[in-house]
Amino acid sequence: MTPTLEHLQQLLKKLPGLGYRSAERVALHLLLEKPESLPVLVEALQNAAANVRRCDQCGHLAEEAFCEICQDDKRDSGVVCVVENVPDVVALERSGAYRGVYHVLHGKLSPVQGVGPEQLNLMSLKTRLAEGAINEIILALSNDVEGEATCHFITSELLPDQGDGGVKVTRIGFGLPSGGGVLYADSVTLKSALEGRRGYE
Amino acid sequence: MTPTLEHLQQLLKKLPGLGYRSAERVALHLLLEKPESLPVLVEALQNAAANVRRCDQCGHLAEEAFCEICQDDKRDSGVVCVVENVPDVVALERSGAYRGVYHVLHGKLSPVQGVGPEQLNLMSLKTRLAEGAINEIILALSNDVEGEATCHFITSELLPDQGDGGVKVTRIGFGLPSGGGVLYADSVTLKSALEGRRGYE
Repeated sequence: MTPTLEHLQQLLKKLPGLGYRSAERVALHLLLEKPESLPVLVEALQNAAANVRRCDQCGHLAEEAFCEICQDDKRDSGVVCVVENVPDVVALERSGAYRGVYHVLHGKLSPVQGVGPEQLNLMSLKTRLAEGAINEIILALSNDVEGEATCHFITSELLPDQGDGGVKVTRIGFGLPSGGGVLYADSVTLKSALEGRRGYE
Repeated sequence: MTPTLEHLQQLLKKLPGLGYRSAERVALHLLLEKPESLPVLVEALQNAAANVRRCDQCGHLAEEAFCEICQDDKRDSGVVCVVENVPDVVALERSGAYRGVYHVLHGKLSPVQGVGPEQLNLMSLKTRLAEGAINEIILALSNDVEGEATCHFITSELLPDQGDGGVKVTRIGFGLPSGGGVLYADSVTLKSALEGRRGYE
């Protein structure tokens, strides 16, 4: 491995899911097996860096002012699902279970890590709510202390300014994951699952 | 996912060890979690593409005319280990078991896939042998039909021109891998292991 290649390997190793050996394999692959693919990858990276931006409305990734979801007339723009990060949107879209729009906070409140409301995409949610076209907010935030704090901030600081304009606020369900048994669930999940019990029909 | 991001994901998916989900994770990571790391990675890829070349002597990766191994005075330049590809060199170097130099063929003979001697880095091996400073050639080629054919070509076509100038030709051992039992070995490996049996001291 030459110094330039080792530097490349070190950078590749920092990517999620790549370790020392897989980074070495990718670096060698790019330089050897597919020398023609390297400039194509470089161009794709540069294009992505140049063209991908945040949606002006929801904070999701976009290539124009608004993302594809905000632009889609078939989506119910009266229902806004509040998520922490872009991968959460990708996961929810993959499930195919949601037809509303999103609001991406790009994090969650964490006083310990110095993340306050001004570090997040929170105030634009207030603006969206002020416009009055939102019927329901679904809080799809983590089942942890920071997620709880962020939910609390949204309901206490952002919503009251709307008066009781009829905005319904829900939080996604917590409990056993699909295919999971009680035996394998941790105690926090079981606590959430018990608290989130529903009438059995 | 925007079109540009999806294109990037498709390219990343082609890299060894990356699947659909891990490519998506890497693409989102590059665009979101570490926006500052993307230009650094692009620069490293461009540097690698521009600076990394083949060693004029052995065909290994180099950033100058000769690779670091060929330039190293402490290596025994009289012993040449012939390998198929650069990753083989990397693996042998990692083992720490070899102090000679290399010759990288960049493939193996395969009439079925249309790979003949002229597609490989074979004739430069003839030149190296003609210079007369080589005492031993270790054939570290695959334990398969193509590896066998390549070994045969080297010994029959490249060596005889040297007369019997005392070049010793060996092939690396085949048999059970470290930690492997007879029970788990396939029949070709067992055949090789039996043929390669040695006196027990």
